[in-house]
Amino acid sequence: MITAKARAVFSPEGSFQPTVIERRDLQPHDVLIEIQYAGICHSDIHTARGEWGPVQYPLVPGHEIAGVVAQVGSAVTKFSVGDRVGVGCMVDSCRECEPCRRGEEQYCADMVGTYAAIDKYGQYTQGGYSTHIVVHEDFVLRIPDSITLDVAAPLLCAGITTYSPLRHWQAGPGKKVAVVGLGGLGHMAVKFARAMGAEVTVLSQTLKKKEDGLRLGADHYYATSDPETFMKLAGYFDLIINTVSAPIQLDDYLSLLALDGTLVNVGAPAESLSLNVFSLIPQRRSFAGSMIGGIRETQEMLEFCAEHGIAPEIEVISADEIDQAWERVLASDVRYRFVIDIHTMKNE
Amino acid sequence: MITAKARAVFSPEGSFQPTVIERRDLQPHDVLIEIQYAGICHSDIHTARGEWGPVQYPLVPGHEIAGVVAQVGSAVTKFSVGDRVGVGCMVDSCRECEPCRRGEEQYCADMVGTYAAIDKYGQYTQGGYSTHIVVHEDFVLRIPDSITLDVAAPLLCAGITTYSPLRHWQAGPGKKVAVVGLGGLGHMAVKFARAMGAEVTVLSQTLKKKEDGLRLGADHYYATSDPETFMKLAGYFDLIINTVSAPIQLDDYLSLLALDGTLVNVGAPAESLSLNVFSLIPQRRSFAGSMIGGIRETQEMLEFCAEHGIAPEIEVISADEIDQAWERVLASDVRYRFVIDIHTMKNE
Repeated sequence: MITAKARAVFSPEGSFQPTVIERRDLQPHDVLIEIQYAGICHSDIHTARGEWGPVQYPLVPGHEIAGVVAQVGSAVTKFSVGDRVGVGCMVDSCRECEPCRRGEEQYCADMVGTYAAIDKYGQYTQGGYSTHIVVHEDFVLRIPDSITLDVAAPLLCAGITTYSPLRHWQAGPGKKVAVVGLGGLGHMAVKFARAMGAEVTVLSQTLKKKEDGLRLGADHYYATSDPETFMKLAGYFDLIINTVSAPIQLDDYLSLLALDGTLVNVGAPAESLSLNVFSLIPQRRSFAGSMIGGIRETQEMLEFCAEHGIAPEIEVISADEIDQAWERVLASDVRYRFVIDIHTMKNE
Repeated sequence: MITAKARAVFSPEGSFQPTVIERRDLQPHDVLIEIQYAGICHSDIHTARGEWGPVQYPLVPGHEIAGVVAQVGSAVTKFSVGDRVGVGCMVDSCRECEPCRRGEEQYCADMVGTYAAIDKYGQYTQGGYSTHIVVHEDFVLRIPDSITLDVAAPLLCAGITTYSPLRHWQAGPGKKVAVVGLGGLGHMAVKFARAMGAEVTVLSQTLKKKEDGLRLGADHYYATSDPETFMKLAGYFDLIINTVSAPIQLDDYLSLLALDGTLVNVGAPAESLSLNVFSLIPQRRSFAGSMIGGIRETQEMLEFCAEHGIAPEIEVISADEIDQAWERVLASDVRYRFVIDIHTMKNE
């Protein structure tokens, strides 16, 4: 067994405590990664607090992981010691089902989450708020040289979660894309949609972050607290990416879609939403959901970021600041992603 | 003005009374149709009873119209006296907007419904429960010789409403299609999906119509009152066409969709529906709506019916039986579409 330092919560309400966890010994296809940075995702909080279902404690969250290969298993062909790599929301899948064969492992029924899941060895997975992790090489991403590891981390969830639906629903020149919510996911969606050539509009509760939004690449910025917004933009968008993980008034947002438009939720509120089919039928609109992206597409997204000079805007914190950072995530007080500097954990 | 005999309701609760209505004098591009058959659609009832919003009375419903051209305007080029023709749910549109240019006039914001709408002459439109109607030639369909006028009528709404989403979401060989509800729309969806080469499953409340469903072309037939159905078919379908215009438990039905599957509502309950985004996100599923079809596609559908020998199963009634027929529609007691023989109105 390999030991790793980590920060864990020990109950749904608990704060973070330093701890030591075990990682499995390297199997032939495994890679040992020395983690350098780990992003903080809203879903870390949902999961750790049991809001998406019961979990086991202690729990080490973190599925936006960037680091350097420290050791490789005997059969590893894709990576060498010293390679700059990342791990996202999943660490394994069945490899045989239709989604796996299509390279969309995130939709595999046996996909193994990076934390709070049981892997094929029967072990409870623990995430990236930690100094080391062992992952099968097929679920390790290569980080292009031009992307520093601190900004690489959030790409592995916030990045791919927004990149994938923008690609799937073909954001590009001539398409009008709205992004609901300008947070960790939303600010990446704006950057991607802009780089893909779409016309980009941010729909945010207030105009507080308007200047930021325009700087990030949005063409337009509207406040959803202003009823005028919904009148003015009725039937306007081809695609709306909703990054908010709290319930929204779906019918209002669906009314903003043009013929054959789609509203895609990547935010995942636990509560059910209400909608009227008359919001869909008269313009053949769709309401859809999308979950992260496959390994192949995640690698493509990283290359896209390198090519277009895209990186998340981050605030780097120490391991002792995770609790405060979580409170600020819940208060939407982050521009735009917290990243834990794992070096601050190593000398403890 | 041209006078026509008709059956109208004079209040939301009222029964049908014989009446006489006026049709406009023929404009250069107008066609006067002597109606022979008119289908009864569930939406006639919703509309006439004010369930979809307030309407003006007297109201003559009917948007499944089949008849023969009796007279043509001076500039009509597409039709001649004696032609066998049909009219569906719309009689005009703006001709200039994006949907109109795409041949999807049903999604034009200024589309004029066949009844209960205001046309460009400022007149309140009245539908097909009537001996004659005047319609611009662009909204008149040609009925292929091999299709008799009685069975042609329901194709103009029940037919196109199910044909269009099956085409749009690409039902065909290798695709697994479910049809929810085996009524006027559902039985057409089964016939179309089968003819397009898809594997077809009927999902009905009970197994009461199972024999019928299999005879109509379904490969499988399941009762949705049996919870086992939802376990057995989890993640199975590429496309579900929901023809039921009462609320359903959306999350249950969404769970039946495979990766990238779509549940399309053509049934239009007035009540809002509830769904959880976790029913969509983990398999990138969509919930969509679809409304009838464009004129070009409706003509294509009629040719498809002629080619594949497809016709609705109908029960022909006299004009005096409309009230009872409506009650039977509401009780789901019809196999599968009532068609009014308009000849029974002519000698009054």
